Amino acid sequence: MALDATPPVRALLFDVFGTVVDWRASLVRHLEAFGRERGLDADWTGLVDAWRGAYRPSMDRVRRGELPWTVLDDLHRSSLATLSEERGLGLDDAALDRLALLWRALDPWPDTLPGLARLRARFTLAPLSNGNVALLVAMAKHAGLPWDTVFGTDLFGHYKPDPETYLGACRLLRLAPAEVMLVAAHNSDLAAARALGLRTGFVARPTEYGPAQTADLRAEQDWDVCATSLGELADRLGA
Amino acid sequence: MALDATPPVRALLFDVFGTVVDWRASLVRHLEAFGRERGLDADWTGLVDAWRGAYRPSMDRVRRGELPWTVLDDLHRSSLATLSEERGLGLDDAALDRLALLWRALDPWPDTLPGLARLRARFTLAPLSNGNVALLVAMAKHAGLPWDTVFGTDLFGHYKPDPETYLGACRLLRLAPAEVMLVAAHNSDLAAARALGLRTGFVARPTEYGPAQTADLRAEQDWDVCATSLGELADRLGA
Repeated sequence: MALDATPPVRALLFDVFGTVVDWRASLVRHLEAFGRERGLDADWTGLVDAWRGAYRPSMDRVRRGELPWTVLDDLHRSSLATLSEERGLGLDDAALDRLALLWRALDPWPDTLPGLARLRARFTLAPLSNGNVALLVAMAKHAGLPWDTVFGTDLFGHYKPDPETYLGACRLLRLAPAEVMLVAAHNSDLAAARALGLRTGFVARPTEYGPAQTADLRAEQDWDVCATSLGELADRLGA
Repeated sequence: MALDATPPVRALLFDVFGTVVDWRASLVRHLEAFGRERGLDADWTGLVDAWRGAYRPSMDRVRRGELPWTVLDDLHRSSLATLSEERGLGLDDAALDRLALLWRALDPWPDTLPGLARLRARFTLAPLSNGNVALLVAMAKHAGLPWDTVFGTDLFGHYKPDPETYLGACRLLRLAPAEVMLVAAHNSDLAAARALGLRTGFVARPTEYGPAQTADLRAEQDWDVCATSLGELADRLGA
């Protein structure tokens, strides 16, 4: 597909956790610092992996109606409270309040900021993340992410991959889905966007889940663009 | 009121048309250029004033249920079509499509960008405008406005001064109203925000409506902060 075919891409929507920021290394580092501060020894890497593992099941509880609509900040806190009990970490309410917001303080991959700076000169850039607006705004301030606006799932009352999220962002941008590209490191996210008519950009993040990652190592469909960094994505999009 | 009293202000929401950008001079300049391009002579200043005059009545038609929810881009186009007929301007659909979007290409007041740059280091900054998200995003790219995120009324399905707008922005920021300040050049906007518990910053824009402006020349209540520029607002907020 020629990227200069009509209609041109006007806006790029970014998956955030894994695609833009390295949640795993960031959280392990933050929790190790917390452990040193409290004199608390634990398997912090294992905790981070279990915490991320609770992410989809916690959203699924909302989808099934077992929980009312809940923003990701609060799902994160609730999952951590459960893990703290299971693992005997003894985190009190104040610690849970504080640590739940570590997901707002994640660091970008090394190519993220230079890539976004190039892309922003040509496209409208926004996250389209399962994070809520306040989480994503705080993360952008922490990491220096130059978004033009922020699309969190609390705008739609739905998590990805529900169609309301992708189509809701297109509606707010007043663009046709074909004028909007989702950029993600996750094949399933791109498949949901493609099914709705959005264009798709895959950025490989083969260490998102650590050295033993097995999923999403490569593109599983002929996405419109495939890259190994946001700089290569900018190259491919002529930005 | 001491501004460092608890709770501290965390986020500033900005009225945009008149407070951040000089819509009148920008539109007159754009329309004069359009007239030269088309060889069309008209009272462009009078047209701009009449166009802005149609703004509240057009929103009121939506409020009364005479029109379904309509984003400001489309209200602008509809008002201009009416004015074109009334004034015999003969604007065709393509011209109306193009000129309606001039509200996305407004220039900031001279103090806006340096003031926002200072404020952004300390606060989360977002417009809270009757404009829609796409309009506000395009304007920010045109004018270089460094918003952290964008709150347009299409997020809420309500225009200001409906409470859903002010409270909706606080909800998305996950802040209490007392942690959020509305910054506006319009006393009525600030009054609506104050009634809901937000803090209030008045910035005088005595030439927004031209040299003969009679309203909003000064603060009409003891707003939490009063200033004559965003730089002075930054001074007063310690930013």
